[in-house]
Amino acid sequence: MSQPRFCDDVLPHISGIQTYQPGKPISEVQREHNLLRISKLASNENPLGASPKALKAVQSELINMGRYPDGNSFYLKQDLADFLKKHPSEIALGNGSNELLELVARIFAGKEDEIIYSQYAFAVYAISTQAVGATGIEVPAKDWGHDLEAMANAITEKTKLIYLANPNNPTGTLFTQKEWEAFISKVPSNVIVVLDEAYTEYVTHDEYANGLDYLEQYPNLIVSRTFSKAYGLAALRIGYMVANEELIAYINRLRAPFNINHLAQVAAKAALKDPMFVKKTVDLNTQGMRTLTQFFEEKGLSFIPSQGNFVCVNLGADSLKINQALLKEGVIVRPVASEGEFSEFLRVSIGLPNENQHFMAALNKILTSSNFK
Amino acid sequence: MSQPRFCDDVLPHISGIQTYQPGKPISEVQREHNLLRISKLASNENPLGASPKALKAVQSELINMGRYPDGNSFYLKQDLADFLKKHPSEIALGNGSNELLELVARIFAGKEDEIIYSQYAFAVYAISTQAVGATGIEVPAKDWGHDLEAMANAITEKTKLIYLANPNNPTGTLFTQKEWEAFISKVPSNVIVVLDEAYTEYVTHDEYANGLDYLEQYPNLIVSRTFSKAYGLAALRIGYMVANEELIAYINRLRAPFNINHLAQVAAKAALKDPMFVKKTVDLNTQGMRTLTQFFEEKGLSFIPSQGNFVCVNLGADSLKINQALLKEGVIVRPVASEGEFSEFLRVSIGLPNENQHFMAALNKILTSSNFK
Repeated sequence: MSQPRFCDDVLPHISGIQTYQPGKPISEVQREHNLLRISKLASNENPLGASPKALKAVQSELINMGRYPDGNSFYLKQDLADFLKKHPSEIALGNGSNELLELVARIFAGKEDEIIYSQYAFAVYAISTQAVGATGIEVPAKDWGHDLEAMANAITEKTKLIYLANPNNPTGTLFTQKEWEAFISKVPSNVIVVLDEAYTEYVTHDEYANGLDYLEQYPNLIVSRTFSKAYGLAALRIGYMVANEELIAYINRLRAPFNINHLAQVAAKAALKDPMFVKKTVDLNTQGMRTLTQFFEEKGLSFIPSQGNFVCVNLGADSLKINQALLKEGVIVRPVASEGEFSEFLRVSIGLPNENQHFMAALNKILTSSNFK
Repeated sequence: MSQPRFCDDVLPHISGIQTYQPGKPISEVQREHNLLRISKLASNENPLGASPKALKAVQSELINMGRYPDGNSFYLKQDLADFLKKHPSEIALGNGSNELLELVARIFAGKEDEIIYSQYAFAVYAISTQAVGATGIEVPAKDWGHDLEAMANAITEKTKLIYLANPNNPTGTLFTQKEWEAFISKVPSNVIVVLDEAYTEYVTHDEYANGLDYLEQYPNLIVSRTFSKAYGLAALRIGYMVANEELIAYINRLRAPFNINHLAQVAAKAALKDPMFVKKTVDLNTQGMRTLTQFFEEKGLSFIPSQGNFVCVNLGADSLKINQALLKEGVIVRPVASEGEFSEFLRVSIGLPNENQHFMAALNKILTSSNFK
């Protein structure tokens, strides 16, 4: 790049943001390593794709490609409200829940304010904080998960917003109903709590707290969910938040009028009508999780017990080299940190049985080769 | 809504934003007025829809619905760069150009700053200004278009950003190459100029300046374009900005990593390969514009000569009543203002020949009825 000219003109907190570097397209990895077979277990995607009902709905709406989407997502919101037993005015839709997580920061926090989130949390919490020039308070994790007691203690006069995830990505940890209730009851009523439940459908733990059940009691609570995971619509970008209608109205004020593309609206609407697809997705995930964790146990590899559609496995100091070796075998997983204790882990999304086998065979080959003994 | 609780907690400039009220879905208008036939000439959409090549590309990618989009839009940006004779690093993609227009404000302007735009301009300029808490300087229009001389004179020490549109929406006015060059040469090099060319493909005027030709000379210039109009992809949400790579890098820093859905990427890529579809679109528009403006002349109605795919016609003090009467006839057009001189106009998008006929017949019927004599 030539000499920067505008670095003094951009707002100071903007110039500090690191450009996000997304992974290469599968096809690039394939070309570079000259591979025939690729198993992408890197992005916590649904290995079954989307519900056939969603595909059919999209197909039948291709004819309307030239028309702007419905800016209110009228029909989708009605169905979603019925599904969640809420009112449409209590729901906001985003271009992925990513957009909504960011909008909430823009609504409540500026450069004098603090936003709390956990160590080892979804990167978007820190990025959204930086994008509004607020101060991020990263609370050290406990057993790789949220230390809710420490997070409550981190609240100050300056705290505007707290991001929580249950289960948490990338660690897969969960906090229980009891822990959650102890936490939320301590948060002052003017501090907004965003509870990110992107992976809620996969949870099998019987002490899980469903955030939706706490909205009436806690008007400062916002529950965030997505169609990108169990519903298999990641390509289309659609997520939602549920909260009391005042908070939702602020989000609708700030979002762009046509932020949800039309195909995402019709696909999500159809996907809601196919609960059996979600069940199939979750069953496949539970099975695959069992297969992978048994394999880890057999190989003497420790892992973080996960309630999501992914699991972090500890591969020690060589983890980044092992990641490269996996790539050469056609298996794409996700390194989660470049330094510190967490960098010993790789995050593996649960795939189809043959993808899981591909990963296990590749990892086995690598671990038994002379380079990693 | 119950008693507001959080109005003191949201950032002050956010609470001032008016919630955008998009129009009802066509199907709602149809149901309410019990109509069989609807002609929607309200949103400057492409009446031909999208290129068959774009539809085919989308169809063949439905199988990848469960996968996240390529966060760099690698392949689309390469093709777009070739098409524009620019480098991929000089292009940023947005969830509609709306998102990009807003990102630029968030990068450069805060509450101490001023943003300049014209009276009768695209509403997103004022909304983006308000969303960052900056002061909007609305410069009075000249002959319904940008008064570029007055806009240059409005620049102060506090000016961070200027939004221009050529042609302008909703008025359809154009400024010439000579006017543009006189303007841009007067703008200080640290003031960012966003030149919105959403309707550039429709221009027939021979003194039009192509913004792309000025990027090298003016590193503070950003050209904004869209696939929503002549390319017929409004449903999918995709627009782009072209500028020097430093400015593009700031946009990429702030945008969400997966802001462009996968189907939009593949559709736009395919649409670029079908220049004949764009030509057909533009020819249809030129013909339809002639038909409508001749009709206006025959009826003695004044209109604002337009270089876009829409035209504003003056229907006098009864314009909003006439709009209601058109709705009852199944014709949806766009009222452009609720008060002042401009409120006498309705904006009509150029449709298919039969849609234009529907509008003309309905307007004729209304104007010759006893209510509007």
